[in-house]
Amino acid sequence: MKKEILELFDNSYADRNYTIEIVNPEFTSVCPKTGLPDFGTITIRYVPEKSCVELKSLKYYFLEFRNAGIFYENITNKILDDLVHILKPRSMSVITEWKARGGITETVSASFTANQ
Amino acid sequence: MKKEILELFDNSYADRNYTIEIVNPEFTSVCPKTGLPDFGTITIRYVPEKSCVELKSLKYYFLEFRNAGIFYENITNKILDDLVHILKPRSMSVITEWKARGGITETVSASFTANQ
Amino acid sequence: MKKEILELFDNSYADRNYTIEIVNPEFTSVCPKTGLPDFGTITIRYVPEKSCVELKSLKYYFLEFRNAGIFYENITNKILDDLVHILKPRSMSVITEWKARGGITETVSASFTANQ
Amino acid sequence: MKKEILELFDNSYADRNYTIEIVNPEFTSVCPKTGLPDFGTITIRYVPEKSCVELKSLKYYFLEFRNAGIFYENITNKILDDLVHILKPRSMSVITEWKARGGITETVSASFTANQ
Amino acid sequence: MKKEILELFDNSYADRNYTIEIVNPEFTSVCPKTGLPDFGTITIRYVPEKSCVELKSLKYYFLEFRNAGIFYENITNKILDDLVHILKPRSMSVITEWKARGGITETVSASFTANQ
Amino acid sequence: MKKEILELFDNSYADRNYTIEIVNPEFTSVCPKTGLPDFGTITIRYVPEKSCVELKSLKYYFLEFRNAGIFYENITNKILDDLVHILKPRSMSVITEWKARGGITETVSASFTANQ
Amino acid sequence: MKKEILELFDNSYADRNYTIEIVNPEFTSVCPKTGLPDFGTITIRYVPEKSCVELKSLKYYFLEFRNAGIFYENITNKILDDLVHILKPRSMSVITEWKARGGITETVSASFTANQ
Amino acid sequence: MKKEILELFDNSYADRNYTIEIVNPEFTSVCPKTGLPDFGTITIRYVPEKSCVELKSLKYYFLEFRNAGIFYENITNKILDDLVHILKPRSMSVITEWKARGGITETVSASFTANQ
Amino acid sequence: MKKEILELFDNSYADRNYTIEIVNPEFTSVCPKTGLPDFGTITIRYVPEKSCVELKSLKYYFLEFRNAGIFYENITNKILDDLVHILKPRSMSVITEWKARGGITETVSASFTANQ
Amino acid sequence: MKKEILELFDNSYADRNYTIEIVNPEFTSVCPKTGLPDFGTITIRYVPEKSCVELKSLKYYFLEFRNAGIFYENITNKILDDLVHILKPRSMSVITEWKARGGITETVSASFTANQ
Repeated sequence: MKKEILELFDNSYADRNYTIEIVNPEFTSVCPKTGLPDFGTITIRYVPEKSCVELKSLKYYFLEFRNAGIFYENITNKILDDLVHILKPRSMSVITEWKARGGITETVSASFTANQ
Repeated sequence: MKKEILELFDNSYADRNYTIEIVNPEFTSVCPKTGLPDFGTITIRYVPEKSCVELKSLKYYFLEFRNAGIFYENITNKILDDLVHILKPRSMSVITEWKARGGITETVSASFTANQ
Repeated sequence: MKKEILELFDNSYADRNYTIEIVNPEFTSVCPKTGLPDFGTITIRYVPEKSCVELKSLKYYFLEFRNAGIFYENITNKILDDLVHILKPRSMSVITEWKARGGITETVSASFTANQ
Repeated sequence: MKKEILELFDNSYADRNYTIEIVNPEFTSVCPKTGLPDFGTITIRYVPEKSCVELKSLKYYFLEFRNAGIFYENITNKILDDLVHILKPRSMSVITEWKARGGITETVSASFTANQ
Repeated sequence: MKKEILELFDNSYADRNYTIEIVNPEFTSVCPKTGLPDFGTITIRYVPEKSCVELKSLKYYFLEFRNAGIFYENITNKILDDLVHILKPRSMSVITEWKARGGITETVSASFTANQ
Repeated sequence: MKKEILELFDNSYADRNYTIEIVNPEFTSVCPKTGLPDFGTITIRYVPEKSCVELKSLKYYFLEFRNAGIFYENITNKILDDLVHILKPRSMSVITEWKARGGITETVSASFTANQ
Repeated sequence: MKKEILELFDNSYADRNYTIEIVNPEFTSVCPKTGLPDFGTITIRYVPEKSCVELKSLKYYFLEFRNAGIFYENITNKILDDLVHILKPRSMSVITEWKARGGITETVSASFTANQ
Repeated sequence: MKKEILELFDNSYADRNYTIEIVNPEFTSVCPKTGLPDFGTITIRYVPEKSCVELKSLKYYFLEFRNAGIFYENITNKILDDLVHILKPRSMSVITEWKARGGITETVSASFTANQ
Repeated sequence: MKKEILELFDNSYADRNYTIEIVNPEFTSVCPKTGLPDFGTITIRYVPEKSCVELKSLKYYFLEFRNAGIFYENITNKILDDLVHILKPRSMSVITEWKARGGITETVSASFTANQ
Repeated sequence: MKKEILELFDNSYADRNYTIEIVNPEFTSVCPKTGLPDFGTITIRYVPEKSCVELKSLKYYFLEFRNAGIFYENITNKILDDLVHILKPRSMSVITEWKARGGITETVSASFTANQ
C-alpha cells in the first residue's frame, strides 16, 4: 500500500468549502486469517484544502490492496490516514461496507476534522 | 456459550473514535419451551477501545448458541455482556430480530456505554 | 380473556434498560355489533422491569380473543392493561391495525410509562 | 348529513391518552357544480375523551354524503365539526384526498384541539 | 339503468378492426342484500362495427347504477348486454373487479363475439 | 390570463386554519423563445381566509395559459400573485415542475404569507 | 391536421426489415363534446419501406391536434391513416392511452400491414 | 466555456424570495487525463436577484463543455462561478454527479450565498 | 465513423454457438437537423463466428459518433452494418433507445442472420 | 486456471434429472488489454450425470482467475469447458455479467448439452 501512488492536483477553489464524494463498489483485498478474498464498497467524503486527489491514481492506490492481507478495520483507518496525510483536507470520512463472509457482513466508519 | 472462543486483535487506531457494525442474518438457537429451532438476525455496533473482535471467532461464538435453549431476551443481553466483558468497548449496541414463531415476531435491543 | 394465561420469566438483565418488540400479524376477534370476525396486527413494545412475557403463553393469551366480541379500542387498551398489570414494565406501547370492514380500516395506539 | 346517525360507545380507558385512526378509501359524494359524483379517501385521527365512535354507524354517516352536493372543503370541515360536536374528543384531525376531476386532484386537512 | 342514456358516434374507420379499452375505477352500486354501497373497477374492451360509445354518456350510464341494488354478476352481464345491444360491436368483453367486503374480493368476466 | 375567470365560494370555516392542496399534472403553456408547448405539474397549497377557489373555474384559469408564451418563473409567480390577489389567503405556496426540454428539467417554488 | 407538415427522409436500409418505435407522452387535443383539453400518450411502431418520418416534423404534426376537437378513436385512426399514406410502411401500429376524464381512462389500438 | 453565451431575462418578481431548480442529466465533458468522455448530472438551485438564466442559453453553455478536458471539481466550481458572476443571485448551489469510471463514481457539491 | 478502429480477437470457441451482449448507456451523437446533441443507450447482441470485438476499441468506435450529425435510424443500421462487415457473426441485433427530444422518445431495432 | 483444483462428489440421484444453479457475484479477473481488474457475476446452471462439483473447490477454482489476464468471452467458455470436461453433466450453461468499463457492460452466455 504505497500511498506515493496517489496523485494530487491543485484545488483552484480553495477559498470555498465544497464537498467531494467518491464511491468505489469494486474494492477487493485478502482476509489475513484465511487468505481468501474480501469484497467491499469504499466511500470517501472530504472538503479539500490545497489539493484534490486524482481519481485514476486513487484507483491504482486501491489496487495496491488487491493481494494484501489486512483487517477491515485497518483498511478503513489506513485509507483515512494515507489520504489525510497526503491531501491535508479540511475534513474527511471513510466508510467501508463488506460483503458477507460466513454469512456475516461488516461496516466500518472513521472520520477526521482538521484543527481550525 | 463459552466467550473464551472470541479472539481479539489490537485496535491500531485507538486514538480515533470510529464505528464497527457487524450483521449476522444466519443466527440460530433453540426455544427453551418447545425445543424447536429459532432463527434471527444479530446486529452488533461498537466503538472499539483497545481491541476489535476477529470475525471468524465471532462466527464460532455464535455457533455455540446453535443447540442451546435460551430466551431471545437473554441471548441479546448475554451477547452484549460477553462482548463488553472481552472487548471493553467505548460503546456497543446489540439488536436481535427473530423470525415468526406461531405467526409472532420479536425484536430485542440493548446497549452499553462506558463510563468516561 | 384470562390474563392468568400469561407466563412470565425473570428478566436477568434488569440493571439495563432494553427494548422488546413483539408483532403478531395474525390476531383475530369478533365484531360486537355484527358477530363477524375481525383481523388485525398487534404490535407490543416494552422496556421490562422484573419480568418478560413468554411468547408461547402470549400467543395463547391472544387466542382468548378469537371468539370474543369486543371493540378495537377496548382490545388495544385491555391488552395494554393486562400486560402492564402482569409485567409491570418500565414502559409499554400497544398498536393495533385492523383490516378493512365495509371498506374502512382502523388503527389504535396506546402507551404506558411507569412512575419513576 | 344527519350526525344523529353516529353511535357512540363509552371510552372505558379515558384515564389514558390514546389515538384512534380511521381510514375510509371508499367515500363518495356529489359535486355541487356539476351534479357528478366525487370519490375520495377520508382519514380521521383522534384522541377520545368520554366516547368513541362506533365504526358501522360512522359508515352509515359517510353514506349520508353519497347523494349530497357539497364542496370538498365543506365536507372536510363538516365531518370535523360533526365528530367534534358528538365525540368531544381531546383532539382530532380530518384529511380528505380526492380523485382527479378534469385532471386535478385536491387534498383538504383540518384539525381541532380541545381547550385544556 | 336506462341504456337509452348511451350516445353513439359513427365509427369512421369501420373498414379496420381496431380495439377500444375503457376503464372506470370509480364505479359504485348498492348491494341488494344489505343496501350498502359496493365499489369496483369496470373494464370494457371492444372492436367497434358501425358505432363507438361516447365516453361522457357512458359515464352517465354508469351513474344509473349508483343507487341500484344489483348483484356483481348481474351488473357485469347487464353492461355487456346493454352495450352489445346498442353498439352491435364485432366483439366485446366486460370485466368487473370488486373491492373487499368482509375481506373477500370478486372479479366477474363476460364476453361476446358477433356471428361472422 | 384573465384572473377574473376564477370563481370563489365562501369559506364557511374561516374560524379555523386548515389547508387545501390542489395538484394539476396536466398544465401546458408555450415557450416564449421557441413557440413550442411546455408541459408541467402545478401544485398549490393554501390556508384560506374568507374565500376558497372553485376547482372548475381554476381549471379554466389554467386553460388561459394553454396558448400563452411565458417563462416558467413568470407562470409560477403570476399564478401566486393572481390567487393571492383574488383569494387573500392566510398563506399560499405554488410549485411548478416542468417536463424535460433539451434534456433539462426545471422546478420553481414561490410562497406568500399574509401579514398578521 | 395537415399531414403535409410531415417530413420524410430516405430509408437507406430498405433491404432490411427493422422496427422504429416512437413514444410521445405529451400529446394534447380538445374534447369535441366539452371543448376541454385531453391529454394522452401516443405510441407509433413501424417497419419502414422507402421512407422514415423525421421526428421534429412529427412533433409539429402532433401540435396540429393541440386545439382540434376530435374523438380519441378518430385521432388514433387518423394518425395511422396519415402516416400510412405518407410513409407507406411495411407495417405500422398506433396506440393512444388517455388520461382519466370523469375518472374514466381509454386506450385505442389500431394497426396496418401492407399487402405483400 | 464562454459564459457570454448565457442569456438572462429580468426577474419580474424580485420583491419575493423564490427558488429555481434546474437539472441536466445529459451533461458530458472530457477527462483531462485520458481524453475519454465523462457523463454526469448537473443540478443548479438558486434564489434569483435581478435576473434569471434563460434555459436554452444554459443548454448551449453546457454544450461548451462537450469537448473540453476538465476535472469534475473544476467543472462544478466553474459553473458556480460563471453563474454567480452573471446572475448575481441571492444564493446558489451546484451539484454534479458523475457516472462510474473504472468502477468509481464521484459527486461534487459547492454553494454560494450573497452578502446581505 | 471509421469502422477500421474496431479491433477483433479470435473466437477460440467457434465450435459453439454462444451469445455476447454489450450495453452502452453513454452513447451521444448530434442531431442532423438542429446540431444539438442526442443521448441514447446502444445494445448489441451477437453470436460470434470467427471473431469477437474487443470492448475498448468498440468504445473508441462509439466515440466517432460523438460529433457526427446522423439520424437515429441510420446510426442503428450503420452500427449493425459495420459490425456485421467486420465480425461476420452468425447473428446480431442492435437496439438503440433515445432520450426524449421535445418530449418524444424513439427506439430503433435492427437485426441480421447469416445465411446458413 | 488449473481445473484439477475442482473436486467432485457422487451424484446419488442420477436416475433423476434435476438442476443445480450456482451464482458467484464476487468474481474478479484482469483485463488482458489494460492490466486493470474486472468484476463480474458468474452463474452456472447444470443437470448432473454421475458427479456434482464441490462448492469450496469451485471457489478455489474461481480464485485461479484473480490475477489472470483473460477476455470475458474466453473466461465464460473456459469455465464451461473445464466444468463439462470434469463433470460430464447432462447439460450446463454459464452466464457471466460484467461491471461497466468505460460505461459499457457485457454479458456472455454459453451452454452445452450432452449427446443423448
